[in-house]
Amino acid sequence: MARYESRTFGPDETPDWLHRRAERSPERLALRSKAGDLTYGQLDELASRAAGALAAQGVSAGDRVAALMPGGPDFAVLLHATLRLGAAIVPMNTRLSTQEMAFVLEDSAPRALVLGERLGETGAPLARAAGTHALYAPALQRGAHAPTTGHRLSDLAALVYTSGTTGKPKGAMLTLGNFYHAAVTSALGLGTLPEDRWLLCMPLFHVGGLSILLRAALYGIGVVAHDGFSEQAVARALENDGVTIASLVPVMLQRLLDAGVPFPPTLRCILLGGGPAPGELLERALGAGAKIAPTYGLTETASQVATMQPAQTDRIGSAGRPLLLTELRIGTPEAGLAPGEVGEILVRGPTVSPGYWRREADTEKALAGGWLHTGDIGYLDAEGYLFVLDRRDDLIVSGGENVYPAEVEGALARHPSVLDAAVFARPDATWGQAVHAAVVLRDDETVSAEDLQSFLRTQLAGYKVPRRIAFVAALPRNAGGKLMRRLLREGGEA
Amino acid sequence: MARYESRTFGPDETPDWLHRRAERSPERLALRSKAGDLTYGQLDELASRAAGALAAQGVSAGDRVAALMPGGPDFAVLLHATLRLGAAIVPMNTRLSTQEMAFVLEDSAPRALVLGERLGETGAPLARAAGTHALYAPALQRGAHAPTTGHRLSDLAALVYTSGTTGKPKGAMLTLGNFYHAAVTSALGLGTLPEDRWLLCMPLFHVGGLSILLRAALYGIGVVAHDGFSEQAVARALENDGVTIASLVPVMLQRLLDAGVPFPPTLRCILLGGGPAPGELLERALGAGAKIAPTYGLTETASQVATMQPAQTDRIGSAGRPLLLTELRIGTPEAGLAPGEVGEILVRGPTVSPGYWRREADTEKALAGGWLHTGDIGYLDAEGYLFVLDRRDDLIVSGGENVYPAEVEGALARHPSVLDAAVFARPDATWGQAVHAAVVLRDDETVSAEDLQSFLRTQLAGYKVPRRIAFVAALPRNAGGKLMRRLLREGGEA
Repeated sequence: MARYESRTFGPDETPDWLHRRAERSPERLALRSKAGDLTYGQLDELASRAAGALAAQGVSAGDRVAALMPGGPDFAVLLHATLRLGAAIVPMNTRLSTQEMAFVLEDSAPRALVLGERLGETGAPLARAAGTHALYAPALQRGAHAPTTGHRLSDLAALVYTSGTTGKPKGAMLTLGNFYHAAVTSALGLGTLPEDRWLLCMPLFHVGGLSILLRAALYGIGVVAHDGFSEQAVARALENDGVTIASLVPVMLQRLLDAGVPFPPTLRCILLGGGPAPGELLERALGAGAKIAPTYGLTETASQVATMQPAQTDRIGSAGRPLLLTELRIGTPEAGLAPGEVGEILVRGPTVSPGYWRREADTEKALAGGWLHTGDIGYLDAEGYLFVLDRRDDLIVSGGENVYPAEVEGALARHPSVLDAAVFARPDATWGQAVHAAVVLRDDETVSAEDLQSFLRTQLAGYKVPRRIAFVAALPRNAGGKLMRRLLREGGEA
Repeated sequence: MARYESRTFGPDETPDWLHRRAERSPERLALRSKAGDLTYGQLDELASRAAGALAAQGVSAGDRVAALMPGGPDFAVLLHATLRLGAAIVPMNTRLSTQEMAFVLEDSAPRALVLGERLGETGAPLARAAGTHALYAPALQRGAHAPTTGHRLSDLAALVYTSGTTGKPKGAMLTLGNFYHAAVTSALGLGTLPEDRWLLCMPLFHVGGLSILLRAALYGIGVVAHDGFSEQAVARALENDGVTIASLVPVMLQRLLDAGVPFPPTLRCILLGGGPAPGELLERALGAGAKIAPTYGLTETASQVATMQPAQTDRIGSAGRPLLLTELRIGTPEAGLAPGEVGEILVRGPTVSPGYWRREADTEKALAGGWLHTGDIGYLDAEGYLFVLDRRDDLIVSGGENVYPAEVEGALARHPSVLDAAVFARPDATWGQAVHAAVVLRDDETVSAEDLQSFLRTQLAGYKVPRRIAFVAALPRNAGGKLMRRLLREGGEA
């Protein structure tokens, strides 16, 4: 059948987003941070100089540029400068060990490593060892302006390293097209308005934060960027900075609720990702007037896969329906399971990563049969709402019974003394695996493991009740607020 | 350089938009008309049956289906049913002469012609003569459900015949990709919210109306559809139907203002297209609290090319900046003119039509050098705002001086007795062309041609003042409200 293609614009073509945005709305706020405000016109100007400085170091189309820096304007400038040259950014987790950083640099082989304030001591020797240029972010502003050119949706925009649960980190490749479709289909779900402002208090080295910067340039909206999370800073931003959308992880939401931070009516959506949120937390937040939109997202899909409508009060616990161009299936590429049946969550659509950087075997496995195998398990209800149960790797099989940690954690969270809880497997001679829990109590609360077990028995089948409960001061979470169950499984506690 | 393409989703792939929308939000309002309300779930069901009925008549992927019917739910169902089969719709102007309709049918060679109520008498003999099936819209609901399949952005979605100023009408080919990018980039300009409702009181056989139906399905918003324009019906819709966006042409806006229809604050945008609007009209509307967003659009770009921000009060008379992925140039494909310099408006981007149906020479001419030659003249100011002066064909060259009809019409509109005015060229032995005008006076107003000429001399250079002014009861406008200057040039009046 005939294809009717444009004679004026290739199907893979896309302009420099920031530059177009700056042409369309130079005066609009692009980024507000403790360093001050930047308009799109100013951000475009800074990105142009930074691109010139990178080009002078030999960075060109097809290269990678690694970033080891805090969140903020320098990062935003570097991101857009890198894309302007047709290169891909490799945002590095500032919390990694030196050894882990060295691995990412070796694996991604960037043309340059750009270092933020106070990261020179860590970064400079790493760059030397990896044989790449080390550049300091402020020095990028001494560059000559680089021209803007057109790009392709199939150009690599970022390598985002995912820690995974086992083995070395892998660089998920994300193209301009992945980010473009993610931004567009997010807007088709949550809506977008020229006067929106998006609160960013998540790290930029995770996809949730990174994608906000690119989405904002496409939408022409302002990002209110905090370097790290603080209840007081969020409260001030909600009151003074015109924030209409905020991206949070459950632990941040809980801290805001505990601190009594009010949610003004102008905050039209809280996009809640980074792992399943307990039903109690959602109900409490909705009760406080927070227009929560739980979402299920992945690095490999440039963020959201499925998202609830903001303030939707039915189906608490669901991550909503898939984005308009995203297809979801539970089961295998060959056959989807019936509604309510539990299986692996598979995803296809224009936001799905083309694979892992230089990991052909991992890529083949992840994308076998034309679907992304997420490694997460869940089900769809009869109306197509997704319920995510757990990471497949987190599933506990105890005496032949499946135990979903998130379900047990949800039950623990309903106990008034419990602030935070993690449920995980430990090897057991009798049952294969045994259910264990680590619990953080609220300040000044005391409760025994036996009391908690009795409480749980009123709510859960006996085989789901943890055999051992340890009380800890804090749970291991990554910078994105995600629970690291692997550390608990392997750790010495509990 | 390497291209990183998805292994799960082709770059040209796109799902059935209505079906996806119905899966995501079956309960949302899709269409409100005098026939009642349809949700997206219901519209999807009706489209599935209609697709089955069309398939039973042999319609399949790559075919065309012509529609001769009024605006309303039957048209919306047919549009989505046609796309579901991979066929393209040919929306026919119900005001054409039988001879003109016969030409469109012969040229587009549709597999079927679907007729609305009271159009059977006209349509049935035409279908017979063209050797195609005639189907009545209600009969489409007796079909068996057709399965939904995926589509390609490069699939033909519509042939929209443009009357042009000379010669036979040409079918502008518009692909799914053209409509998709038009919808997305419109949303990136004006914003979109799940609770939006779009007022459609323009004919569906023009691109302005047609694109609203497709955009709405992608956004998941409701269309409030009127079959024709009435001040009272619009007033009621603004008051009762939750309309947040309305598409109007200048003459409709003027009638609403004259009738004193209030613009509620919930009406966040009036997209004003279909030809340049006089500055007085814009100022009057803005003064009345109407959040006007003037736009410049074309059939060949699936609607908007450039659009102002709603309620923007500076640069009255501009059509705004280009949409985010649309590139504008004044001049030639080889070189753009400087800001302020007047020339032909050229456009490129993903919304540009791949050409005219079976008109290779016209296509080559229109798209020469990789830019769409619009035939309109205008200029960009230093900040990239577009000012459209006129159709190149409407330009009057009188004694070697360029006269832009829109400028003279704007001056006439400033006279308190003038309701509507059209300025056009007539051959003149001395000057090559002479400036003529046709004027509609307000009720109970009288003014002489000499008085109007004196009035104009206070505002315009002498060579721009019409040599002759005729008073008429109404100006020739097409169903979309667009002034048909060609008829005046060729007509016997004035």
